[in-house]
Amino acid sequence: MRNTTNERLVVLGGGVIGLSCAWRAAQDGRMVTLLDPAPGSGASWVAGGMLAPVTEAWPGEEDLLALGVESVHRWPGFAADVGESAGRPAGLRTEGTVVAATGSGDRAELDALAAHLGRLGRPTERLSGRELRRLEPAIGPDVRGGLSVPDDLAVDNRALLAALRAAAEKAGVEFDPRSARQVREDDGRVTGVHCTEGADVDADLVLVCAGAYSAGLHPSLAGLVRPVKGEILRLGRRPGALPAPRRTVRALVDGRPVYAVPRPDDGLVVGATQAETGFDTDVTVGGVRDLLRDVERVLPGVAEYALLEAAAGLRPGSLDNLPLIGARGPEGLLVATGHHRNGMLLAPVTADAVLALLRGEPVPDPARAADPARFAAADRREPASGSSERR
Amino acid sequence: MRNTTNERLVVLGGGVIGLSCAWRAAQDGRMVTLLDPAPGSGASWVAGGMLAPVTEAWPGEEDLLALGVESVHRWPGFAADVGESAGRPAGLRTEGTVVAATGSGDRAELDALAAHLGRLGRPTERLSGRELRRLEPAIGPDVRGGLSVPDDLAVDNRALLAALRAAAEKAGVEFDPRSARQVREDDGRVTGVHCTEGADVDADLVLVCAGAYSAGLHPSLAGLVRPVKGEILRLGRRPGALPAPRRTVRALVDGRPVYAVPRPDDGLVVGATQAETGFDTDVTVGGVRDLLRDVERVLPGVAEYALLEAAAGLRPGSLDNLPLIGARGPEGLLVATGHHRNGMLLAPVTADAVLALLRGEPVPDPARAADPARFAAADRREPASGSSERR
Repeated sequence: MRNTTNERLVVLGGGVIGLSCAWRAAQDGRMVTLLDPAPGSGASWVAGGMLAPVTEAWPGEEDLLALGVESVHRWPGFAADVGESAGRPAGLRTEGTVVAATGSGDRAELDALAAHLGRLGRPTERLSGRELRRLEPAIGPDVRGGLSVPDDLAVDNRALLAALRAAAEKAGVEFDPRSARQVREDDGRVTGVHCTEGADVDADLVLVCAGAYSAGLHPSLAGLVRPVKGEILRLGRRPGALPAPRRTVRALVDGRPVYAVPRPDDGLVVGATQAETGFDTDVTVGGVRDLLRDVERVLPGVAEYALLEAAAGLRPGSLDNLPLIGARGPEGLLVATGHHRNGMLLAPVTADAVLALLRGEPVPDPARAADPARFAAADRREPASGSSERR
Repeated sequence: MRNTTNERLVVLGGGVIGLSCAWRAAQDGRMVTLLDPAPGSGASWVAGGMLAPVTEAWPGEEDLLALGVESVHRWPGFAADVGESAGRPAGLRTEGTVVAATGSGDRAELDALAAHLGRLGRPTERLSGRELRRLEPAIGPDVRGGLSVPDDLAVDNRALLAALRAAAEKAGVEFDPRSARQVREDDGRVTGVHCTEGADVDADLVLVCAGAYSAGLHPSLAGLVRPVKGEILRLGRRPGALPAPRRTVRALVDGRPVYAVPRPDDGLVVGATQAETGFDTDVTVGGVRDLLRDVERVLPGVAEYALLEAAAGLRPGSLDNLPLIGARGPEGLLVATGHHRNGMLLAPVTADAVLALLRGEPVPDPARAADPARFAAADRREPASGSSERR
């Protein structure tokens, strides 16, 4: 990557990743255009906002855990920078996370998670149901035990998006409301972007941050990112209802994961279903029923809360659940996508990695595993379809 | 009531009752102004749209049953008139209603309803679970028996509101977007309406059709009408999901009533909770959870439907569940309110009764029981509060 700053960088997609990268690049003195007809309106708008690499840990995904831990360490500084640049808070919440288990199978699964984290040198604190309720009185009697993970944080995703947008504008990012259709190239070099309407946009560098829509923007990305639908609910405390928890509460209820992430004024975001049904953003009866049933088992007081919103977003799932951060395809094409459930969490380390790539510097160590070069052209698989689960 | 047509009638409230009365009065040659900042947006917009006097029957409410049966008989003619005047369909559905019972207690309650209707000379057809499923294959195996009531109809409330508004406009009703604050009177006669903003509106006659907000508009109505919140869900069939029922499906699920009213394109409106919590239109977690659980017990295929909307409206509950249709308070004040769960059903007979009152003619016989004169000033009670149930 050439280290010149008079090149025009065009960022495709104004979610949390595109906004973070565009802001950082413009701060660094680059000419940046961000293409999105509705910045901040996609999966990032729907997100729960957990910054929770440890309680998201899954055996076999150690690279993702390392990347997430690196990013959550960068989050306080990132939030301070965003807030200062934007003149408004970035929405970081540092109260931490508890994990709750209901049935005996759920407790066994939590034991397995704790053991896994212990083997990785990340011990967690086991708590009885009574100890959990002492931390968070909103937790109900069906919860028999759990974990405290104070380093897993959360962010108010909508506050963050507003702050990132303000910071990007102040740093000089040009927002272009056209919609990208395809990266344009000539003789093995990126030359710009074809739009769905209107004239092309010329570019020396193109950064694809289009989330679930990334795969269609260049043949080299075909099959590498697929939409994974997630449904969430937004609840608001009503007069007379019990206070919301202060920490993020994650739980296993009869084997189904559910989480409740606090928002200002005793609001809660409850998520999330997971379904591979293509570019489908329907909120389903079955999804809402499951989320309500499960969150009520853990936080019974929410029965008296208002249901403010039910929404679905499309996570950009990659083939190995690690994002794709790096060069791909023709010269001048960069990608920062495939963040799946972890876009909010991984925004700081992703933006830092993209900035390093633009400067021709080495990316942060844990981000090397996210190099899209790990996928050969032969890895362009068809997405799975029709399956539905929560994790 | 004087039979002159050069008087100005001001109708307060543009729900189904206000629109119907205003349209009929204007058709009859009167000068009519309808005051509402957002006609068709209140409880009428949220309504399920059942036209179901028989399956709503409740021992002790025989006057209401007679009024409802009279009105449902008038519905086909009313719908045809509205449709013709508006140049668009009024949304009437004539496929009828089935009632389903799940547990043995529910079947016993349905037996009691059938016996009650039989004693009133309105026999109903008992059906086994299998017979119900033959009529409506969407009904699930937990339903063990029920009733068929083909004369209980339904209406697409939003189609009706649009048609009524168009019909009223064509008939010359003037729509005024100001909000009524209080009926103005002088020396025992109505003279107009004080508005929350802007100048007063002069009137010779004022018709209060303000639903749950009626009681505050004149001291003579204080305590006679109270808000009864109802939550409903709107569902839409997704690709691959089972077809919706063609008839209205009402059910008792472990003692809780639930209904699903078909809409065009395999849509369903599912209702309704009932809560006396004042002027509160929050949709609650507990309400949605109950509606989803109960409708899934009866129509399991809706699990795959999209949840399009969750909303709450305020029914205007009266002290005896009968509406108030007639003169009240100072000369020139008429009311047509307190229709509680039955605004859509009772719109035709209410509009006809109001037209009769304006003409100085006798009201339709079953509407005489709705004369507000049945309440003395002493009946101005405080509304109940805090209770919550479904019926």
